[in-house]
Amino acid sequence: MKTAIRLLSHLAKVTLCVSLISLFGPHSAQAQLLNFSKQDLLDYTRQDPFDRFPDGRPKVPNDLLEQARELSSEEVWAVLEQRGFHNQYADGFQILHPGKPMVGRAFTVQFMPLRPDIDEIAKNKAKEHGIPRLMNQTAIDMLQPGDVLVVDIFGKKVNGTIVGDNLFYYVMKATNSGGLVVDGSIRDLNGISEMDMPAYFRSVDPTPIGNVMLTGINVPVRIGGVTVMPGDLVVGDREGVYFVPPQLVKEVLDRADEIRIHDEWTKKKFDEGKYKSSEIYSTPSDPKLLQEYQEFLKKRLEEVRKQRSQK
Amino acid sequence: MKTAIRLLSHLAKVTLCVSLISLFGPHSAQAQLLNFSKQDLLDYTRQDPFDRFPDGRPKVPNDLLEQARELSSEEVWAVLEQRGFHNQYADGFQILHPGKPMVGRAFTVQFMPLRPDIDEIAKNKAKEHGIPRLMNQTAIDMLQPGDVLVVDIFGKKVNGTIVGDNLFYYVMKATNSGGLVVDGSIRDLNGISEMDMPAYFRSVDPTPIGNVMLTGINVPVRIGGVTVMPGDLVVGDREGVYFVPPQLVKEVLDRADEIRIHDEWTKKKFDEGKYKSSEIYSTPSDPKLLQEYQEFLKKRLEEVRKQRSQK
Amino acid sequence: MKTAIRLLSHLAKVTLCVSLISLFGPHSAQAQLLNFSKQDLLDYTRQDPFDRFPDGRPKVPNDLLEQARELSSEEVWAVLEQRGFHNQYADGFQILHPGKPMVGRAFTVQFMPLRPDIDEIAKNKAKEHGIPRLMNQTAIDMLQPGDVLVVDIFGKKVNGTIVGDNLFYYVMKATNSGGLVVDGSIRDLNGISEMDMPAYFRSVDPTPIGNVMLTGINVPVRIGGVTVMPGDLVVGDREGVYFVPPQLVKEVLDRADEIRIHDEWTKKKFDEGKYKSSEIYSTPSDPKLLQEYQEFLKKRLEEVRKQRSQK
Amino acid sequence: MKTAIRLLSHLAKVTLCVSLISLFGPHSAQAQLLNFSKQDLLDYTRQDPFDRFPDGRPKVPNDLLEQARELSSEEVWAVLEQRGFHNQYADGFQILHPGKPMVGRAFTVQFMPLRPDIDEIAKNKAKEHGIPRLMNQTAIDMLQPGDVLVVDIFGKKVNGTIVGDNLFYYVMKATNSGGLVVDGSIRDLNGISEMDMPAYFRSVDPTPIGNVMLTGINVPVRIGGVTVMPGDLVVGDREGVYFVPPQLVKEVLDRADEIRIHDEWTKKKFDEGKYKSSEIYSTPSDPKLLQEYQEFLKKRLEEVRKQRSQK
Amino acid sequence: MKTAIRLLSHLAKVTLCVSLISLFGPHSAQAQLLNFSKQDLLDYTRQDPFDRFPDGRPKVPNDLLEQARELSSEEVWAVLEQRGFHNQYADGFQILHPGKPMVGRAFTVQFMPLRPDIDEIAKNKAKEHGIPRLMNQTAIDMLQPGDVLVVDIFGKKVNGTIVGDNLFYYVMKATNSGGLVVDGSIRDLNGISEMDMPAYFRSVDPTPIGNVMLTGINVPVRIGGVTVMPGDLVVGDREGVYFVPPQLVKEVLDRADEIRIHDEWTKKKFDEGKYKSSEIYSTPSDPKLLQEYQEFLKKRLEEVRKQRSQK
Amino acid sequence: MKTAIRLLSHLAKVTLCVSLISLFGPHSAQAQLLNFSKQDLLDYTRQDPFDRFPDGRPKVPNDLLEQARELSSEEVWAVLEQRGFHNQYADGFQILHPGKPMVGRAFTVQFMPLRPDIDEIAKNKAKEHGIPRLMNQTAIDMLQPGDVLVVDIFGKKVNGTIVGDNLFYYVMKATNSGGLVVDGSIRDLNGISEMDMPAYFRSVDPTPIGNVMLTGINVPVRIGGVTVMPGDLVVGDREGVYFVPPQLVKEVLDRADEIRIHDEWTKKKFDEGKYKSSEIYSTPSDPKLLQEYQEFLKKRLEEVRKQRSQK
Repeated sequence: MKTAIRLLSHLAKVTLCVSLISLFGPHSAQAQLLNFSKQDLLDYTRQDPFDRFPDGRPKVPNDLLEQARELSSEEVWAVLEQRGFHNQYADGFQILHPGKPMVGRAFTVQFMPLRPDIDEIAKNKAKEHGIPRLMNQTAIDMLQPGDVLVVDIFGKKVNGTIVGDNLFYYVMKATNSGGLVVDGSIRDLNGISEMDMPAYFRSVDPTPIGNVMLTGINVPVRIGGVTVMPGDLVVGDREGVYFVPPQLVKEVLDRADEIRIHDEWTKKKFDEGKYKSSEIYSTPSDPKLLQEYQEFLKKRLEEVRKQRSQK
Repeated sequence: MKTAIRLLSHLAKVTLCVSLISLFGPHSAQAQLLNFSKQDLLDYTRQDPFDRFPDGRPKVPNDLLEQARELSSEEVWAVLEQRGFHNQYADGFQILHPGKPMVGRAFTVQFMPLRPDIDEIAKNKAKEHGIPRLMNQTAIDMLQPGDVLVVDIFGKKVNGTIVGDNLFYYVMKATNSGGLVVDGSIRDLNGISEMDMPAYFRSVDPTPIGNVMLTGINVPVRIGGVTVMPGDLVVGDREGVYFVPPQLVKEVLDRADEIRIHDEWTKKKFDEGKYKSSEIYSTPSDPKLLQEYQEFLKKRLEEVRKQRSQK
Repeated sequence: MKTAIRLLSHLAKVTLCVSLISLFGPHSAQAQLLNFSKQDLLDYTRQDPFDRFPDGRPKVPNDLLEQARELSSEEVWAVLEQRGFHNQYADGFQILHPGKPMVGRAFTVQFMPLRPDIDEIAKNKAKEHGIPRLMNQTAIDMLQPGDVLVVDIFGKKVNGTIVGDNLFYYVMKATNSGGLVVDGSIRDLNGISEMDMPAYFRSVDPTPIGNVMLTGINVPVRIGGVTVMPGDLVVGDREGVYFVPPQLVKEVLDRADEIRIHDEWTKKKFDEGKYKSSEIYSTPSDPKLLQEYQEFLKKRLEEVRKQRSQK
Repeated sequence: MKTAIRLLSHLAKVTLCVSLISLFGPHSAQAQLLNFSKQDLLDYTRQDPFDRFPDGRPKVPNDLLEQARELSSEEVWAVLEQRGFHNQYADGFQILHPGKPMVGRAFTVQFMPLRPDIDEIAKNKAKEHGIPRLMNQTAIDMLQPGDVLVVDIFGKKVNGTIVGDNLFYYVMKATNSGGLVVDGSIRDLNGISEMDMPAYFRSVDPTPIGNVMLTGINVPVRIGGVTVMPGDLVVGDREGVYFVPPQLVKEVLDRADEIRIHDEWTKKKFDEGKYKSSEIYSTPSDPKLLQEYQEFLKKRLEEVRKQRSQK
Repeated sequence: MKTAIRLLSHLAKVTLCVSLISLFGPHSAQAQLLNFSKQDLLDYTRQDPFDRFPDGRPKVPNDLLEQARELSSEEVWAVLEQRGFHNQYADGFQILHPGKPMVGRAFTVQFMPLRPDIDEIAKNKAKEHGIPRLMNQTAIDMLQPGDVLVVDIFGKKVNGTIVGDNLFYYVMKATNSGGLVVDGSIRDLNGISEMDMPAYFRSVDPTPIGNVMLTGINVPVRIGGVTVMPGDLVVGDREGVYFVPPQLVKEVLDRADEIRIHDEWTKKKFDEGKYKSSEIYSTPSDPKLLQEYQEFLKKRLEEVRKQRSQK
Repeated sequence: MKTAIRLLSHLAKVTLCVSLISLFGPHSAQAQLLNFSKQDLLDYTRQDPFDRFPDGRPKVPNDLLEQARELSSEEVWAVLEQRGFHNQYADGFQILHPGKPMVGRAFTVQFMPLRPDIDEIAKNKAKEHGIPRLMNQTAIDMLQPGDVLVVDIFGKKVNGTIVGDNLFYYVMKATNSGGLVVDGSIRDLNGISEMDMPAYFRSVDPTPIGNVMLTGINVPVRIGGVTVMPGDLVVGDREGVYFVPPQLVKEVLDRADEIRIHDEWTKKKFDEGKYKSSEIYSTPSDPKLLQEYQEFLKKRLEEVRKQRSQK
C-alpha cells in the first residue's frame, strides 16, 4: 500500500502543474491559443526547396543533415549575413556535450506563464478536439527522427525544466539523437549527462516543469534574438546555435566546402613557415599565390564533391 | 532642395527598418503570423462580465477604471493570489512618472526578431488584405480612449524603441492619457518626460525601432512573467504593473475598499499610541477592538460606497 | 458574512507564513536560535562610552544623534578608515527619500530561510518563554525612539518584505522617524513613499513576508559587507549607510566639524578666482595661506561649538 | 638568512589577517560571538533518529552515507518537497569534479566581516577558554571522517578563500574525502584540481583568507537560500547541493530506490519502441502496463534491498 | 596640536595614493606615458572648422554651444548615423540633474591601474619637466570655461572617485558649469547634489581616488563604446551622452532645427484630432498635407534663424 | 565565376571593417594614434635586468620561461603583493585548455571604437610610413617565439574577435605556442579547441572583427584591473593571468621553489596522520618540527637547483 502511495506521489512529479493550452496536429490547429495552421506554415515557408512532412513542415533531406554535421557557426554566418539574415544565431547556453555537433530540423514548442482562466478554457477546447491530457509530452510524442526539439519557455529556471532524464531519453530515441534547444532549463543532469544526444539549455533545476501553459506546437517561436520557424535547419557547435532557413541550406553547405578548403590551404602555407599571415590570409597578396590557391580550391572542391557523391 | 533632402532623410528615421508581419482587425486576422481571431478572443475571455469593443476585446467600464486609480499592487495581490492567479505582476521597469497611477484596458502588440523571408511573405499577405504599410503605427492608430498600449518587443534596447516623443504624444491623445507598458525601450526621453501620460519601459535609446517584425495585435503576449490578454485591466503604481483579468476587477475593487478602511483604522489606532503593533495589526487580538474595527469597517464601507454612487 | 470572510483572508496576508524562531528580551535570550545574551552584548560593546538601554544596548545620546544629522558618508569614512574599520559601509540600496538624512541607533533583526523542523521546535520554545506569536511584529514592537530598524533578510525580494505601509507607519511612530535599513524588500511603496521616515531597501514586492524564520533580535547581523552591532550609530545619506561603533561617534563628529570648516574655507578661496585648485586643496601650498586657513579653522571651530552648546 | 626571511613572509600568507571570534567545542560555546550550545543543538535536532557525535551533532550512519552516493538532486527533491521542506537546495557553484558525487555530514563554519573592536574582545575571550590562535584552521582541525565542511563566508571572493591546496589536502585526509561547500572562494585551484575530493565553491582567487572573523563553528548557517544545520546529510551532484535533515534521510533513500527502478522500467519500455512517452511516463495509462510496472517494481525493490543488505 | 594632527590626516584624504604618470601641456607631451602631442592633435582633428585653443584643441564657438543646449540624443543620432559615426553615444550613467542639459567641449583625462615601477619613473620624468605634484588636480587646474571634464578611469568604483564636493565645486567654477562625464565614480554626493553643474557618473563611493596613475591629459580616451577626442562637442540629456566631432556640429544643429519644427507641426496636426498618426507621421501621406508641412517648415526655419541671429 | 565571386565574398569576411590607426615598428611610432616610442619603452622598463628585443621590449630569458611553466597564481601573488604590486592579476576569462599552463612575454595590442574621421587620417599617416594595409594581422605578423599576444579590445563580443582558427593557427606557429589573452572575443571555437596553444578570452562570437580601429602595438594596455607593459612575463593557470614585471621574475621563481618545497613537506607531515593542521601549517608550532622543516627546505632547495642547473 505504502509503496503504491509513494509511487503515485512520485509519478505526480512531472504532471504536477503543467497545463497545456491546445494541440496541434495539422487538423487541430484550432485548439491552439496561438494558431498557426498547416496553410500558414506552407505560406510562410514557401521558399522551402525540399519535401515536407505531412503536417507541412519543411524536411531538409537526410544527406544534407549528414553533411551539415561538419558546419561551425562561422561558416553559417558567412552566407546568412550576406543574404540579410542578421538574427539567426543564439548563444549563452550551457552545452551538454561541447565536442558533439547538433544538427536537425526544428520542431518548435512554446510555453507561456500559467493563467487559470485561459488554462481552463484551453483544456475544454482540447478535449473537444480529442486530446485528453495536455502536457509537454503531447508535443514530445510528435517528434520525428532527425528533429531537434526547440522550446521557448521564456528562460524559466525553477519549474521551467522541459525534460528530466526519462523524457530526455525518449527524445533521444524518437529523434534518433537529434537534439534539444531550450530557452529554459532541464532536470536530472546527472542522468542526462550520460546520454549521447546534444543539448543546449539555460540552466538546470531539480524541480519539475510547472506554472506554465503549452501555447503552441510547431508555431514560430523566439529563442534569444532569433525567430525560429518549424523546419529550420538547426546547427549547434561549441559556441551556440544557428537556425538556417531551408532555402539557404544548400548555399551554406557549398560555401562551407570552400571555406574549409581555404583554411586547409592557408594552414598548409603557414606550415611552410615562409610567409607572414597577411601575405596568405585572408586572400593571398601575390597574384601567383592567388592563382595557386584558386587551382587548389578547384581541385579539392572536385575531390570533396566526388567523394561525397560516392557515399 | 537641400532642405527637402534633409527632410526625407529625417523622415526615414522611423520607417527605416520596421517590418510588420500582418494585421489585424477582427476581419483581417488571417493576415497575422500568429492568428488570434475575434472568436478566439471571445472564447478565451468568456468570463468577462462587461461589454466588449467591436473587435471582441473586453471593455472594463469607465467608472471602474476611475475607481481603480486608487489601487496599489498589494491591494491587487490579495485577490489574485487567493483566486490562484500567481503570474499577473511584472516589475523591473523604469517608470516615467512614479507618482502618477496608470489604469486602463490592455491593447497588446507583439514583435519578433526580423527574418527577411517571413517579412516579405507577410508584406504581401498584408497588401492582399488592404494594409498598405505595416509598422508600429498600424497598431498605434487602432488605440481607443482608456487603452494602455502593452508591447512585447522581447526586452530589446537598441532599435527596440516603440515610440519617440511624436508617437508618445499621439498615444497620449488617442488613449486619453491611458498609458504605455513596453518590454523594450523608448526614445526621446527628454521630450516624453514633459508629457503627462504614465509609461513603464525597460530602457531608453536614441535609435529608432528596427530589425523587428510586428507579429500580432491584440493577441496574448508575455510581459515579464505575465501572460497578458487583450482587455485585461492594467494597473501600474510605483512598484510595477498588475494585469487583472476582467472577471476579477469588481472583486479587486471591493477588497481594496476594505483594505483601505482597515489601514485607516489601523493608523488611527497607532496614532493613539496605546497599542503595540501586534495588538492591532493585522487583526486586533482583543475581541472588543475587533468589534470596534468591524463596526468601523461597516460604517466606512457604507460611506465610501454611497459617496462613490453619488459621483 | 462575505465581508467577514474577506476580511479574514485579508488579515491573513501578513501572518501567512512568517515563522519566528525565538525571542528575545534580555530575559528570553535562551529562546533564540542564535543566542546573544545581555552579557554577550555588554562584553562585546564594552568600549561604549555612553549609557545603555535596559537590555544592554549602547545608547548614543540624543544630542549627538542630532548633531550627526549633518554627517555624510565621506566624513565618516575619514575617521573609520584611520582607526582600522574598513568594513562599516554598505551601499546599493534604493533610498526612499534621498534628500533626507537617516540617523539613529541600530536595532537589529535577523531572518533565515524557513525549515519546518527548526520552526516547530522554536515555536514551542517561544511559547515556553511566554511569547504566543512569533513574527516580524514581535521585534517591531520592541523599537524605541531614536532607533533605526536594521534587518538582515538575506537580500530576499519575493516574500522578503519586512514591512508594508501599516507597519512602516508603526515603525515611524515608535522610533520617532528613526529609519529602516533592510537587506531585503518592502511592500506598499505607494503608501510608504508618502511617509516621512528614511528607508534603505534592496527591492519592492507586492507579496507579504513569508518562507522565513526570525532567528535573532539585537544580535550581530550582516548588511552587505558590514557586521552591524546593536547600538551602532546608523548614518544614511544619498550614497549609502555607515554603521559607526559607539566609541568612535564623538571623534567622527569632531572631525566632521573640521572637514566642513575646511570645505567652507576652500570654497571661499575658490570663489575668489585667484587660485588653481592645487594651490588651495587639499592643503594650501603657500605657508601664508596655510596659516590663514589654520586661523580660520580655529575661529570657526570655536564659533561652531559655542553655537552648538547654546542649543 | 634571506631564505629564512622569505620563508617567514611566505608563512605569513595565510595567517595574515584572519581573526576568529570564538570557539567552539561543546564546552567552549560561551566563547562564540553567536552561541549555539550542545543543548541547543540537541533541542533543535531532536527529530534525529540516529546516533550523535560527542558534541551533539547528528551522525547519519556510514552505510546510509554509502547508499546516498547514488542520489541525484531530483530524487531528493521528491521527498523534501512533499514534506514541506522547500528551502534545502543551493546551486550556482563552481564544481571541482562534476562527475564525482559528494556525500557527507554537514560540519558548519560561519565568518562575518572583520570589526577590530569585536575581534579584540573575541580574542581575549578565546584565550580565557584556552584557545591560543583563532583561525580557519581551528575549525578545520575539528573535522571528522565523513564530514563535509560547509562554510558561510558570505560569497566573498577576494580574501574569502577558505582553503588553498595545503588545507584542502588536510580536509581531504581528515574527512576521508568528504567534501567542501563554501559560499565564498578557494585558492590554488591548480593544485586542488589534482586532488580527489568533491568541492563546491563560488569563485577562485589568489589571495589568502582575510578581513573576516570566524563567528561560529557548528552553528546554523545560511548557504544560498538554505538554513543548514550541523549534521545535515549533504548531497552534491552535477547541479547543486541538497542539505537533508537527518530525520528524512531514510525516506529519501527509499524513495530513490523506487524512482530508479521506475526509470529503469520506463527506459526499457521506451527501448521497445512501441509506445509514445505519454503511454508509459510518468505513469502507464494502460491498466495492464501499470500492473506490469508494479510487479517489476516489487521484484526489483526486493532484489535491490537484498543485494544491499548483503554488502 | 591634536587639531593640527587631525587636520593633516584629513588633508591626506585625497592625495593619499593617486599617482600620476606624466603631464601635459603642449610642451610637456614627452612626460606622458601615452604621448599625444599638439601636432598629433592638429593632425587627427584637421577637419575641425573652428578656432583652436593654444594647446591645439578644437574650440567649438560659444554661440553654437549655446544653441546646442536644446539638443537631445535623438537629434544628434540622425546626423551622426547618416555620416557613418555609429560609435559616438554612451549611456548607463547616473545623472546628477536629469532635467538639466550638459553642453561643452571635451577635456579628456585618462587613468590606468597603478604600477609602482611605472609610477616612480613617471614621477621622475614629470619633475624633470617641472611638474612637482602629479594628481587629478594637475588636469583639473587646466580646465577652461565651456569645458566638460571627460574622465576614463575604467569604470572603477572604490578609489575611482575623480572628485568630491570640493573639486566638483572648483570644476564648476573653472568650466563655468560645463559638466563632468566620468567612467568611474564620484564622492560626496550629498554636497555635490546641491551644486548646479551637470554630471554623468557610473557610481558613488565614500573613498578618495587612489591605486591609479594618471596616464594622459587631452589624449583620445574611451568612454563606454566611444572614442572621445579632445575638443569634441559633448551633449548630455536624460538618456546619455553624445560626443560630436567638431566638423559635424553645424550640421547637427541645422538638422535639429528642422526636426523640432517637424515635431511642432506634427503635434499641431495631432491636436486637431482629425488624423491617424500614420497620415501625418513621419511624413504626411497626402500631397496637400506634405506641401502644407513644407511651407510651415520653410517659414518657421526662417523665423527661428532670424530670431537666433538677433540674439 | 560563381566560385570566384563566392571566394571574394568569403575572403572579405575578416577584412570587412577593421580599421587600423597606425603602426608600429620602433621607427614608425609616429604613425600610432597613441605613441609609445622605443625610447619610452626603454625609459619605463629601465629596471629590466635582461636582454631586449631590437624594438626595446624586455626579453625574459628562455630558461626562465621554461621554469615559469610550473608557477601558479598564488605563488606569483606572494612576491608581487610584498613588493607593492597589487594590480597585476586578471581573471574572469574563458580558458581554452584549463590544464595547460601559459607562459610567455607580453606582446600588447590595443583597439578603440571606430571613428571614421580618425580612421581616415590614420590610414593616410600609415601609408606615408609604408604600411599599405592596417589590420589585426599587421600586429600578428610581428609576433616572436615565446610571445603571448595580449589584446585590449575593451571587452567587445560582437565584432570583437581578434582571431579565428586561421589566425589562431598562425599565432601558435609564430609564438611557438606562446599564448593569447584577449579582453574581447574569438571566433571559430570549434577549430581553435583542437589546437594546442593556451588562450584566455571573454567570449566567443561568429562575427569577424570590425567596427574598431587598431590604436597601438606594444604600448601599455589595460587588461581588467592590470596595466600590462610590453615584455611583462605572462603566467596563466586555471584561475587567471598574472603579468609579472621583468625585474621581479627571478624573485618570483625563487620564492616558488620554496613554496613548493614547503607544500611538499606539509603534505608529507599530513600524510603521517599524527598532526592537526595548525601544528604544521602554515608554520610548525613545535621548534623541533620547525628545525626539521628548515633542514628539509635547505636540502630540497639544493637538490632542485642542482637538478635545474643540469638541464
